Amino acid sequence: MQEQIQPVILCGGAGTRLWPASRGERAKQFLDIVDDASLFASTLARVSGRHFADPLVVCGPGHVATAREQSRDRPIRLLVEPAPRNTAAAIALAVVAAPSDALLLVMPSDHVIADVPAFHAAIDRGASLARENWLVTFGITPDRPETGFGYIKSGAALRQDGFAVERFVEKPPRAEAEAMLSTGDYSWNAGIFLFRARVMRDAMRTHCPAILDAAEWAIAASRVEGPAIYADRETFESAPADSIDYAVMEKHDRVAVVPVSMGWSDLGSWNAVHNLTMRDEAGNAVNGDAFLHDSRGCLVRAGGRRVSLIGMEDVAVVVDGDDILVMPLARSQDVRAAAQARE
Amino acid sequence: MQEQIQPVILCGGAGTRLWPASRGERAKQFLDIVDDASLFASTLARVSGRHFADPLVVCGPGHVATAREQSRDRPIRLLVEPAPRNTAAAIALAVVAAPSDALLLVMPSDHVIADVPAFHAAIDRGASLARENWLVTFGITPDRPETGFGYIKSGAALRQDGFAVERFVEKPPRAEAEAMLSTGDYSWNAGIFLFRARVMRDAMRTHCPAILDAAEWAIAASRVEGPAIYADRETFESAPADSIDYAVMEKHDRVAVVPVSMGWSDLGSWNAVHNLTMRDEAGNAVNGDAFLHDSRGCLVRAGGRRVSLIGMEDVAVVVDGDDILVMPLARSQDVRAAAQARE
Repeated sequence: MQEQIQPVILCGGAGTRLWPASRGERAKQFLDIVDDASLFASTLARVSGRHFADPLVVCGPGHVATAREQSRDRPIRLLVEPAPRNTAAAIALAVVAAPSDALLLVMPSDHVIADVPAFHAAIDRGASLARENWLVTFGITPDRPETGFGYIKSGAALRQDGFAVERFVEKPPRAEAEAMLSTGDYSWNAGIFLFRARVMRDAMRTHCPAILDAAEWAIAASRVEGPAIYADRETFESAPADSIDYAVMEKHDRVAVVPVSMGWSDLGSWNAVHNLTMRDEAGNAVNGDAFLHDSRGCLVRAGGRRVSLIGMEDVAVVVDGDDILVMPLARSQDVRAAAQARE
Repeated sequence: MQEQIQPVILCGGAGTRLWPASRGERAKQFLDIVDDASLFASTLARVSGRHFADPLVVCGPGHVATAREQSRDRPIRLLVEPAPRNTAAAIALAVVAAPSDALLLVMPSDHVIADVPAFHAAIDRGASLARENWLVTFGITPDRPETGFGYIKSGAALRQDGFAVERFVEKPPRAEAEAMLSTGDYSWNAGIFLFRARVMRDAMRTHCPAILDAAEWAIAASRVEGPAIYADRETFESAPADSIDYAVMEKHDRVAVVPVSMGWSDLGSWNAVHNLTMRDEAGNAVNGDAFLHDSRGCLVRAGGRRVSLIGMEDVAVVVDGDDILVMPLARSQDVRAAAQARE
């Protein structure tokens, strides 16, 4: 019988890059951004069937109700972080709560993966490496010199399954991104990981013991309500806030990468949403009641109101509640300026 | 004692050129577009004191309540058109309802006049001509080759008071507008008139008897409620819908023009509003709760909601109720496209 894989879905983000649609308790992962289903629901659907166990969802207390509602008939367990402490602490909670031998597949809840069979095939390759005590990361085959992502350089081949990681590269300048793209040895770090719980726990003991300690105490003192485990606030809040990349992956000596091309997007901006959404022949992607006159390449989310555009090109108009955001799609990275001023 | 002047304020327009702020019962003239007072209230204030009688306001039935509310302590009389029939019929109602010897000063309710003393001085010049049985029109000294207005050519001088009108020119093409501007003999037709009631009535009897007939019967069968005279629907609706320019002024042989430079604007588009509104150092004119980041030359009317702009230039964002209009200010003339689709 094939060994089960335990999905761990990281659901703690607030996602202000898609403000004003995404904010507070209605974070990006719970919105219908691309399809009729939320990104969270699509993430759950992606790890159902086959040899996947019921997902473990790591989220904040403000997201428990929405996560349960959107999981519908799918049984999930919830691991509640009392406060956000970045990915290393969130993963540590899952590692401590899971059986030592479990194969954990950790993934963000707010990404798009268009080619699910390719994802599953990559998981199979990753699992064979994880069983040999590799910490496995999935590397997205890049199609452009993106400066907003981290990169992973592949080193020695590990059979047909993947490569030993030679190094991690933080968000690079444009020229460096172009150079990496041309070598073919680099992939994007998408924040999807596969490993045995015990192996990650040992790595954390070595590389970030304070985070692991905090997670162990927070689980030991946790409180259970139905399907939700509430980690203890005081002990968990003592955990340093680090990314898993910085706290473990970049320091560990047995890290593998499984390159995969699977129609992935992190939907990290309204521009990315526009690129992934169904558009009409004028390149407009419209959600809700919008009247577009002589307008091209626009993204409109009317949010229950009535948006009228005349003579506009390549702009985003996003309405949510009383907030109305208007900007060129090319300025999507600057949305935080408004989110910070407004929230 | 100086002869009284009877202001007649035409208030029947719907003003879709400033959609969505202006529509239906909240027409442009009743909005605070430029100052804290509505255009209608500013128009009333402009004809108070001196030798002005209490204004006669010609409006539709849907505007009676708003007109009374916005006139506040100023006594007004209302002349209610049961249906819109353009300016000739509206003026005919006032002409019929007024004493024969009254000097009527007819003006739109939705224009801006910054230099009121200049306006009053022009009225004095016009009154001296109206007493000699001229139909007087006020001509705005043009400062640009505007193609959206009608023009008036001055002929023989009438003392220091004005000129006999040589001809009216409909909205001209650009080249013709430039040529007219360069001669110095042309002014814009602003739709402001001064005449003795009897003289206009005689002119209407000659040039547009069907309109005058309809007005006479509609007043004869009218119904009075407090300060409002409701013209009879059936007879008034039989009046042809013509502009006063077309029905009378362009045909009459004793029409004078009093040129005046008085900071006039018809606020005929959001672009005109932007030009006349107080702007910050980045050229943004903002009304309501707006956050502008790296944006220039924009007009924002937040309409009780919260508008955030990032990296936008020279656009209008107008919010009213559930409607949100976004367009380049240079496209302001196209706003009807949205108004028609939405109303």
